[in-house]
Amino acid sequence: MSEKKSTNVVWHDHLVSNEEREELLKQKGVLLWFTGLSASGKSTIANEVAHRLFKKGKLTYVLDGDNIRHGLNNNLGFSPEDRTENIRRIGEVGKLFADCGVITTTAFISPYQEDRDSARRLYKDGQFIEIFVKASIETCEARDPKGLYKKARSGEIPNFTGISAPYEEPVKPEIILDSDNLSIDEEVEQVISYLKDNKII
Amino acid sequence: MSEKKSTNVVWHDHLVSNEEREELLKQKGVLLWFTGLSASGKSTIANEVAHRLFKKGKLTYVLDGDNIRHGLNNNLGFSPEDRTENIRRIGEVGKLFADCGVITTTAFISPYQEDRDSARRLYKDGQFIEIFVKASIETCEARDPKGLYKKARSGEIPNFTGISAPYEEPVKPEIILDSDNLSIDEEVEQVISYLKDNKII
Repeated sequence: MSEKKSTNVVWHDHLVSNEEREELLKQKGVLLWFTGLSASGKSTIANEVAHRLFKKGKLTYVLDGDNIRHGLNNNLGFSPEDRTENIRRIGEVGKLFADCGVITTTAFISPYQEDRDSARRLYKDGQFIEIFVKASIETCEARDPKGLYKKARSGEIPNFTGISAPYEEPVKPEIILDSDNLSIDEEVEQVISYLKDNKII
Repeated sequence: MSEKKSTNVVWHDHLVSNEEREELLKQKGVLLWFTGLSASGKSTIANEVAHRLFKKGKLTYVLDGDNIRHGLNNNLGFSPEDRTENIRRIGEVGKLFADCGVITTTAFISPYQEDRDSARRLYKDGQFIEIFVKASIETCEARDPKGLYKKARSGEIPNFTGISAPYEEPVKPEIILDSDNLSIDEEVEQVISYLKDNKII
C-alpha cells in the first residue's frame, strides 16, 4: 500500500500560507500525538486538552477512533501492514490539519516507533509533538473500562497490544505523562504548560 | 480497499462540537467540491475562493493534488479502483475539515457521479456543495497549460479524463460555473454569493 504511484500530478501554489492562517487564529498549528497502551488514558487526555484549549478561544480538533477508524480508515484492519497504513494516513491527515493552523490531537495506540517516526518526518520542526501516556500494563488491565484486556487474555481479541502484540515505548518523546501516578487534570496541565513554554499558544 | 474491517473500536464522546467551533470561527464548516475536466480551472478557482474568503477573515483550506496526491494518497494510481479510493479518502478528509469548522475547497477531476455521491453522503445536509466547473473539452484542450492533453492524444498518458477515460457531468450540482464564458473573477464571485445567500459566511 505504501508504493508511490502518483504521476502526472500538477503542482499549484497555494495563495494562503500556513503562517497567515496561524496569524488569523493566533496560535501555532501542531499535532499532539498521544501514544500508549489501551486504557492508558490517551483519548480522555487528548479530548480534555482540546476542550480546555477551546475554552481559551483556540481552534482544536481531535482525531481518534471515532472519526478515523469509522471513516477514512474503515477499510483497514489490525494486521501489522494495516496498522502501519493506519498510522501513515493519520500522520498525513494530521499534517494537513497542522498546516491549516489547527491544534490537533491524535489518540491512537501507535505501537511501533518506526511508524511514529515516519509520521514525524512529514512535519516541520516543532510541529509534531509526541506524547507518551505512560501507564503500566497492570494499571491498564486493572482499569479495562471496556473489558478488552479480558477478551485479549481469553484469546477472543487477537493481536492485542501489550498482551499478544508488542508496544514499543517512545525513544525520545517531547512529553511523558506518568499516567500511573498523575490525575487526568495534572496530565492535561502538563501538556498545556508545554504548549505555552514553546509559544504554540 | 473499501471493505470495512474495523472492529473492537471504542467510541468516545468529543467534548467540543462542530457547532461550537463554527461559533468560534463565525462561519459554517463546509466542503466546496469542485469537479471538472483537467484545465477547466478548478484549482485556480478553488484557491482564489479560499484566498478571497481568507482576506475577509475566514478560515479556509484547499485540498488538491499538491497536498493529497503527494501525501495521503501517494499510494494510489489512476486505475478506476484507485480513483474511487482517491475520491473516497478526499471525501472523508474533507468531512473532518468541515466538522472542524473550516471552509474547505477541493479541486479534483472526480469524474464519476457515483463517487461524488458517495462523498456527499458522508456530510450533513448543506455541508457538501458540488460545484461543476463546466468547460468544453475544446476549451480545455486549447488551454492545456501543462501539455497533458497533447500527451493524452499521443497515448503517452493513458486513462486521461475526457480523452481516453469518461467524465460524467454532475446531475444536480449546487453551482454550475460557465468556465467557457466567465472570467475567474466572475466565477469566484458566483461561489461567494452562494455562500452568503446560504448563510455559510
